Amino acid sequence: MRTSIATVSLSGSLTEKLTAAARAGFDGVEIFENDLLASPLAPEEIRARCADLGLGIDLYQPMRDIEAVPAEEFARNLRRARHKFELMRRLGADTVLVCSSVSPSAVDDDALAAEQLSRLADLAREHGIRVAYEALAWGRHVSTYDHAWRIVEAAGHPALGTCLDSFHILSRGSDPRGVEDIPGEKIFFLQLADAPLLAMDVLQWSRHYRCFPGQGGFDVTGLVRRVLATGYDGPLSLEVFNDVFRQAEAGPTAVDARRSLLVLQEALGAAGPPAPVVPTGVAFAELVTPDAEPLTALLGALGFTRTARHRGKPVDLWQQGEARILVNTGPAVRRDGTGLAAVGLESPDPAGAARRAEALLAPVLPRRRAPGDVPLEAVAAPDGTELFFCATGRPGLPDWRADFEDTGRAPRPGGVRRIDHLALTQPWHHFDEAALFHRSVLGLRAQESVDVADPYGLQRSRAVTDDDGSVRIVLSVGAAPADDTVHAQHIALATDDVVAAARRFRAAGGRLLPIPANYYDDLAARHDLGEEELAAYRDLGILYDRDAHGVFRHCYTRTVGRVFFELCQRDGGYRGYGAPNAAVRLAAQHAVARPTGG
Amino acid sequence: MRTSIATVSLSGSLTEKLTAAARAGFDGVEIFENDLLASPLAPEEIRARCADLGLGIDLYQPMRDIEAVPAEEFARNLRRARHKFELMRRLGADTVLVCSSVSPSAVDDDALAAEQLSRLADLAREHGIRVAYEALAWGRHVSTYDHAWRIVEAAGHPALGTCLDSFHILSRGSDPRGVEDIPGEKIFFLQLADAPLLAMDVLQWSRHYRCFPGQGGFDVTGLVRRVLATGYDGPLSLEVFNDVFRQAEAGPTAVDARRSLLVLQEALGAAGPPAPVVPTGVAFAELVTPDAEPLTALLGALGFTRTARHRGKPVDLWQQGEARILVNTGPAVRRDGTGLAAVGLESPDPAGAARRAEALLAPVLPRRRAPGDVPLEAVAAPDGTELFFCATGRPGLPDWRADFEDTGRAPRPGGVRRIDHLALTQPWHHFDEAALFHRSVLGLRAQESVDVADPYGLQRSRAVTDDDGSVRIVLSVGAAPADDTVHAQHIALATDDVVAAARRFRAAGGRLLPIPANYYDDLAARHDLGEEELAAYRDLGILYDRDAHGVFRHCYTRTVGRVFFELCQRDGGYRGYGAPNAAVRLAAQHAVARPTGG
Repeated sequence: MRTSIATVSLSGSLTEKLTAAARAGFDGVEIFENDLLASPLAPEEIRARCADLGLGIDLYQPMRDIEAVPAEEFARNLRRARHKFELMRRLGADTVLVCSSVSPSAVDDDALAAEQLSRLADLAREHGIRVAYEALAWGRHVSTYDHAWRIVEAAGHPALGTCLDSFHILSRGSDPRGVEDIPGEKIFFLQLADAPLLAMDVLQWSRHYRCFPGQGGFDVTGLVRRVLATGYDGPLSLEVFNDVFRQAEAGPTAVDARRSLLVLQEALGAAGPPAPVVPTGVAFAELVTPDAEPLTALLGALGFTRTARHRGKPVDLWQQGEARILVNTGPAVRRDGTGLAAVGLESPDPAGAARRAEALLAPVLPRRRAPGDVPLEAVAAPDGTELFFCATGRPGLPDWRADFEDTGRAPRPGGVRRIDHLALTQPWHHFDEAALFHRSVLGLRAQESVDVADPYGLQRSRAVTDDDGSVRIVLSVGAAPADDTVHAQHIALATDDVVAAARRFRAAGGRLLPIPANYYDDLAARHDLGEEELAAYRDLGILYDRDAHGVFRHCYTRTVGRVFFELCQRDGGYRGYGAPNAAVRLAAQHAVARPTGG
Repeated sequence: MRTSIATVSLSGSLTEKLTAAARAGFDGVEIFENDLLASPLAPEEIRARCADLGLGIDLYQPMRDIEAVPAEEFARNLRRARHKFELMRRLGADTVLVCSSVSPSAVDDDALAAEQLSRLADLAREHGIRVAYEALAWGRHVSTYDHAWRIVEAAGHPALGTCLDSFHILSRGSDPRGVEDIPGEKIFFLQLADAPLLAMDVLQWSRHYRCFPGQGGFDVTGLVRRVLATGYDGPLSLEVFNDVFRQAEAGPTAVDARRSLLVLQEALGAAGPPAPVVPTGVAFAELVTPDAEPLTALLGALGFTRTARHRGKPVDLWQQGEARILVNTGPAVRRDGTGLAAVGLESPDPAGAARRAEALLAPVLPRRRAPGDVPLEAVAAPDGTELFFCATGRPGLPDWRADFEDTGRAPRPGGVRRIDHLALTQPWHHFDEAALFHRSVLGLRAQESVDVADPYGLQRSRAVTDDDGSVRIVLSVGAAPADDTVHAQHIALATDDVVAAARRFRAAGGRLLPIPANYYDDLAARHDLGEEELAAYRDLGILYDRDAHGVFRHCYTRTVGRVFFELCQRDGGYRGYGAPNAAVRLAAQHAVARPTGG
């Protein structure tokens, strides 16, 4: 299936857009007129550039306000069209998009629209060009795909067909079943965009909030299935207007875009990537730090034991229960302080997981870091976090622990059972990409996005998990690009008794994040908790939440570099991450970081 | 009239919010519950802090999901309320906001709502507290102010009144005339917010897009007039949820907020600032630069003459027609490269203009920079640009030119007549403030905002002008905070013949911004221009626009530091600034700045 992307979906100059589209593996592009106007390249040069890059020019777009207008205005429109058809000849583009008119001078007269579109198609045919007529969701008289098709059908012109756009169809709530009544050869083009389900003015929604398929709330797959059922064999082409993509680097956006189409094609049952291999647990989290001392003091107080050391690198393995933390003091690439650099995911088929990741355009990392290392499958997530596919203690598969030498110390039985979840702050421009990546590459499920009020800006966060909660990753993003580095990453450790675990931590010299007394007064007002229980929470800084399933209790360590730990206790099938407490936690962290803020 | 602001409207910790509100001159605050919960200060400490700052605590808010629920749930709600009333006693707050319920368990029963609110008011009265019941625009059963009032009226309880919120009333399109039917003493509180007129889900609209009065599209003034007509004599209190303000520094936001209320009070005819003194022209634009050479070469090529030099400072005056540019190479405060630091505005009453600016909270600058300087009235705009109120050549008033000594060179007659407009990039967080500032402080009119597609992000821009276009300032803002420094400021110079002016500039060695040939092909398709005319535009890089009134032709110089010049020709009463060409201009500027982008 041919894939294409509109240049308006990517940031930068036309050259940058074309390069990014080609590198991400698209077959073709739609040239957005404004990108051409702003380019110093002549149409012939653009054509040559595309040919060099292996890109077809699948569409030139858009022509606006053409049809159903008074004769004199239509004559001017034909004059303008002639210029554009001449341009398209130089460009080597053979299909033009005509949007339904939004002009105040357009009249509600389908017969006139059909007649004028026919005349436009006559002119187009002389230039070897096909006209694809599309209903804008906010078109003045023609705003639904079936209406546009009735006009095209009435015109009955071989050079006139329709263009379908998933946004225009699904944003209007049109019944997509009618698509199947259109003969495939009369669907000249198919544009795809998803969008979050917002109740807002459809024009603004379209201009600012479109996203790639699978990143919004539309059933784009269902629509494409219907279009393919008609016999349509043109490109699946992405046309996404989005404030974020306008600012983001074109390269990663193009990869994100193409991945969305690969996932869509898989959902359609068309040739797809290798099947997902869902991880079954977290093998380890790897922290890099220029100075191990603060981290190891923290891990020690949390009850972790340094059980092993890497044979060839300055990497220690700290363990408690099934929770394993690697502390890497080597010359890591990301040496900007202490941070979370890698996550090991337990995988029933590490090689298969890596093959899928690669097919879905994740950068594959070298299998061996150094001679002698156990070969490990690993890829990079969009935020740069390295994901290792591990088979800890699985016979017949390489075990990452073979690279480590035991210190002779066994993990002490402590309160921590395993890693409950990992919270990773995402680069601002790639939050939706991160969710789609984790969902598609790892086969995890994305939960709903939630907004969290930080005292200095709003945060969005979204969890991706497997079915039984063995792997839980919380992706979050700050309020603005500048905030990328403000918000820390964290590792949440599962306990069966968070009060006991917190007490042990404190007795071992650990410092918990202090939570304001006002929070506990409010807790007392909202929930009927025992006095002793409440006193313990207040004393330790334990936060409390309830959902329909159960109860969540959690507390936080102080931050080291960009990393902190959470101790948590999940009871009765609680599914969340304590989001209602996040504002209080963030304020407390700011208060510690800048005490003058008070 | 007492002014107040909700702590949720400001960024930071509670202490930071209170400090900012007090410094901006507010009389009181609404304490937003989440701000209190996140604060390490005990309620008594918050009370003391407010007292120290001279702030009253005018409202505690909100209590939610109280009324019209089953008895058992209501009992729990009363228990919760008792805790909150106890807290309010410690805080010294005597009015609590109760929002209409959004709970799924609330029933549509006004009598039950009235009865339960009465019982809540009984409990409140025991604590010396009044309950202000407000209809949320998205309340489950009560979503309009008149409905909330009917319930309050039915309850007939002395400790129960209503709270009016301009957003909830005006966003629903409710008829505000009904406000006058409510007895003033039963309006316990008045919250004010404006908002841009967006067609979107009202909850999201409220949470993310509220703004200060005068910065949106609501008739807040009209509503307040009606409320005051009832005899209401409580505070005018701002409650604004806004993604931008959450991130912006609290201090400037509080000043912006208070200014909006001062302007509102003026519109109401209540005690207000001195009357506006509308500027009648641009006296000068002052550029600071560490290296005068590139600027002076540019000014020379544009036809300017160095006519005078400051007697005490390294500042040169360049003049052509009525356009005057100061080039300051002194140790200016803003020494981060070449930029526009100050604007001189012709004022019929400089002292009056400064008095108004000061009353509207603009920082007043010292009248004399150095001993011997002519005393000049000046204030700082929100972006830091210094605004001087000048009386060039006006008898009886100090003339700024007296500080300058003539070089003996007279300005040559050239193509430039005067400064057509100044384009100033605004700090990201203060775009709406800038428009309100220029409108209110200077008495200019704000035009509609327009979006402009930069290849690397979307820009918004908005012009403020006087009635006859003698003073035109275009405020613009980048797509994201990180972009603050990306976009340049510019000075547009009015000519009667832009083709001739551009040719002269080029002949004098000036370099014009090259515009892609594709732009001119499109111009030929859209407009019926003569071949010679089009050839001249193409040759010089002149852009072309038309509106309902006339024609605009303009071209640009290369950028020096953060500054560039525009040569323009306005014919037939054209009112805009060539916005349709901005995307092409921005792309051309990026192409010059990073030619590899192509």
